[in-house]
Amino acid sequence: MKHFTQFESKELGQELIDLALSYKANPRLDLAKGQGKRVGCIFLNPSLRTRVSTQIAAQNLGMEAIVLNMDKEGWALEMKEGAIMNKGTVEHIKDAAGVLGSYFDILAIRAFPSLTNREEDVNDFVFGQFVKYCGIPVVSLESAIRHPLQSLADQITIREFSLEKKKPKVVLTWAPHIKAIPHAVANSFAEWTVGMGHDLTITHPAGYELDPKFSQGATIEHNQSKALEDADFVYVKNWSGFNDYGKIISTDPSWMLTEKHLKNAKNAKVMHCLPVRRNLELSDEILDGARSLVQKQAENRIYAAQAVISTLLG
Amino acid sequence: MKHFTQFESKELGQELIDLALSYKANPRLDLAKGQGKRVGCIFLNPSLRTRVSTQIAAQNLGMEAIVLNMDKEGWALEMKEGAIMNKGTVEHIKDAAGVLGSYFDILAIRAFPSLTNREEDVNDFVFGQFVKYCGIPVVSLESAIRHPLQSLADQITIREFSLEKKKPKVVLTWAPHIKAIPHAVANSFAEWTVGMGHDLTITHPAGYELDPKFSQGATIEHNQSKALEDADFVYVKNWSGFNDYGKIISTDPSWMLTEKHLKNAKNAKVMHCLPVRRNLELSDEILDGARSLVQKQAENRIYAAQAVISTLLG
Amino acid sequence: MKHFTQFESKELGQELIDLALSYKANPRLDLAKGQGKRVGCIFLNPSLRTRVSTQIAAQNLGMEAIVLNMDKEGWALEMKEGAIMNKGTVEHIKDAAGVLGSYFDILAIRAFPSLTNREEDVNDFVFGQFVKYCGIPVVSLESAIRHPLQSLADQITIREFSLEKKKPKVVLTWAPHIKAIPHAVANSFAEWTVGMGHDLTITHPAGYELDPKFSQGATIEHNQSKALEDADFVYVKNWSGFNDYGKIISTDPSWMLTEKHLKNAKNAKVMHCLPVRRNLELSDEILDGARSLVQKQAENRIYAAQAVISTLLG
Repeated sequence: MKHFTQFESKELGQELIDLALSYKANPRLDLAKGQGKRVGCIFLNPSLRTRVSTQIAAQNLGMEAIVLNMDKEGWALEMKEGAIMNKGTVEHIKDAAGVLGSYFDILAIRAFPSLTNREEDVNDFVFGQFVKYCGIPVVSLESAIRHPLQSLADQITIREFSLEKKKPKVVLTWAPHIKAIPHAVANSFAEWTVGMGHDLTITHPAGYELDPKFSQGATIEHNQSKALEDADFVYVKNWSGFNDYGKIISTDPSWMLTEKHLKNAKNAKVMHCLPVRRNLELSDEILDGARSLVQKQAENRIYAAQAVISTLLG
Repeated sequence: MKHFTQFESKELGQELIDLALSYKANPRLDLAKGQGKRVGCIFLNPSLRTRVSTQIAAQNLGMEAIVLNMDKEGWALEMKEGAIMNKGTVEHIKDAAGVLGSYFDILAIRAFPSLTNREEDVNDFVFGQFVKYCGIPVVSLESAIRHPLQSLADQITIREFSLEKKKPKVVLTWAPHIKAIPHAVANSFAEWTVGMGHDLTITHPAGYELDPKFSQGATIEHNQSKALEDADFVYVKNWSGFNDYGKIISTDPSWMLTEKHLKNAKNAKVMHCLPVRRNLELSDEILDGARSLVQKQAENRIYAAQAVISTLLG
Repeated sequence: MKHFTQFESKELGQELIDLALSYKANPRLDLAKGQGKRVGCIFLNPSLRTRVSTQIAAQNLGMEAIVLNMDKEGWALEMKEGAIMNKGTVEHIKDAAGVLGSYFDILAIRAFPSLTNREEDVNDFVFGQFVKYCGIPVVSLESAIRHPLQSLADQITIREFSLEKKKPKVVLTWAPHIKAIPHAVANSFAEWTVGMGHDLTITHPAGYELDPKFSQGATIEHNQSKALEDADFVYVKNWSGFNDYGKIISTDPSWMLTEKHLKNAKNAKVMHCLPVRRNLELSDEILDGARSLVQKQAENRIYAAQAVISTLLG
């Protein structure tokens, strides 16, 4: 593994889950491994869980983590090749990424999509420019189209709660929201769930089709009630339109997951990547009840990051 | 001691002062105690002294301190039970605090009052929600109504400068200010000074009465000149109205403490929690003279925090 | 060396370069030296390279570095003696610097010029107030008139790339820019280059004369083409007017350095402190070509800071 930016193979996925669970049992198992090494955490967008869990993961490996909130502490980066920089951008990504590459052993980067320029977003342009120019291993802390650390934490959680069932039924269900939300979590969750060999059903109102690159291998079922039948894991997530790019097509409140929706899935565990808007995406009764795995997922973010950084250290 | 949010007992106060002074003599005395532990410092409002002194305290105990400026790096938290989150708040305190509780061993939190909703402030609502949902020991870095780490540092300073006198005369005097300032420092100082068995007089213009819950046990004297007679320690602090909640009732400049005010208190030491507005709350001549303990108090913030964190570690 | 704020002597310069190069060869050579010590990094203005390289330098010496972005995390400081603080400023530099001095072993400070009040800037007023009141060793992370850590990194880079030539020809050439830029980098580069005994030529359009205090000892040549002949090192930098203070006097694009400008300096290496505005100050062809030392300079920032902090620790 050279970078950690997407799902690569079931074998690697299994290895990372195994390693993460061994760190969960003993967080300081490899405390000597990262001594004298540094991870730079570059945020082009805000973060709570991702920032803190990555810092803790690095510390558990004996590494120093240095956080750069480029949106607040830094300045506007120029992304275009050959640009004449006589406007608002202060530094070219080539130069900034090159310097960061010389300061750190690993670079962890968060770069959200614009949701206005689909071609640029689909090509993960901003994130890709960092990878291209920094010259060191990169960990995605959520790019325009993927959030693989979240997905790894999700798969660790599914492993922990499906010990007896080898091929659980997993459902990814769209939820209402008041803002246009990126596709990264949904894309990555589908990519990893199918990739790890689980049975995935995706359900959403018409018009919310994901990029087929990510939904391939999953069953698409527009009838939410039918999709949820006998589910073992229900992943709740909003996303905006992909075909009608970045648009809010529906806010139909009947799609908000409640206990009633799970009447035919009595053992279903419910997942969400957080932050969650209560009583808009998911009801209090579910979040505060026994089905909810959201706190477990968040805790597993530490060990997902730790397994990834450890593997990149080699 | 489960949390550190208020004055508990004279015995615990003495123990914390003793421990703080032993750390002041030897900051790295317990460097092994916090190895592998983490304190999360959550700021809903800005800080200089508090943030840095808490980080240093944690480092002196071998712990990692991670700072989260929620006001700048994070997002708006929903505090109300059962809220339908279809407006500006992005994450419910239940979920955020739960995650933070799973990431850290101790949570240190700053949450100022609104100064507009007295009932919510008096119940320390925002701070209390963190305590309620995080599930781990909490240190107050100043809540809506108390600033106990400041008060502990103040008591350490009083101890250091009153070796010969067992029951010094302490005066808390209101000072003018141009902004409406919270009651937390004044409340806590009164609570701790009375609790530690000192003789406390509070003086302020009519209308600036503190919440009786905090001023009980102190002598209230509206004549500032009389109050200051023979004082050993004079604590200068502005606060806004409590009865006329959050209002500026007077800015009378004659209340600003100067040398002239201390003509009948020739040995008085002068204290302030900082930041201080010079020549508005306190005169340059006092702050730059031999009476001032303000730098000592600030330095003792480190050892106050260190004693508290160490005690919470058990 | 008590503080590191400017060029002091050729001997000290050589020592610092030697020490920096030994740290570059073995970054953790003196890992025990800073154990239990702390450097506070105070930014009154934003930073990327300077902040991160200083943090890494401190970590390489086993020290804790704590960063304070005063412009974003803190509050407005009062700088004037005797001010009646009944306006926007919240804390006097005397008090803030005094506290910081009691919290840290070394203070590293960035304070840019106003570019509106020449007298205040020339006297490095804001920076000087920190030095005056903190009572501990200070490292300049760029003041109103100097950027000595950048200059030390530049001299390390010149040493690395001029092994065979004892007295290389160094040219500092003004470059166009769209904003009014401080003189600090140009001033310090001139001060250090002349001080280290190199042959320095400064070239710029008429009206861009630097403060003679810094350009003394250098040859001033308004003909850029003549100045660049046979140069070994060409340092590209914009600055605003000094005589017509803080003004943009020319943006003549013919001054932007390109390969064509270097036709009579075929071995010239090109330097810039970054961030650089591509195709405005310097062409892509140079920055992406073999002449460019800009990434080397940035990397050397770590070892420059490490040598300085180590020397201040004694």
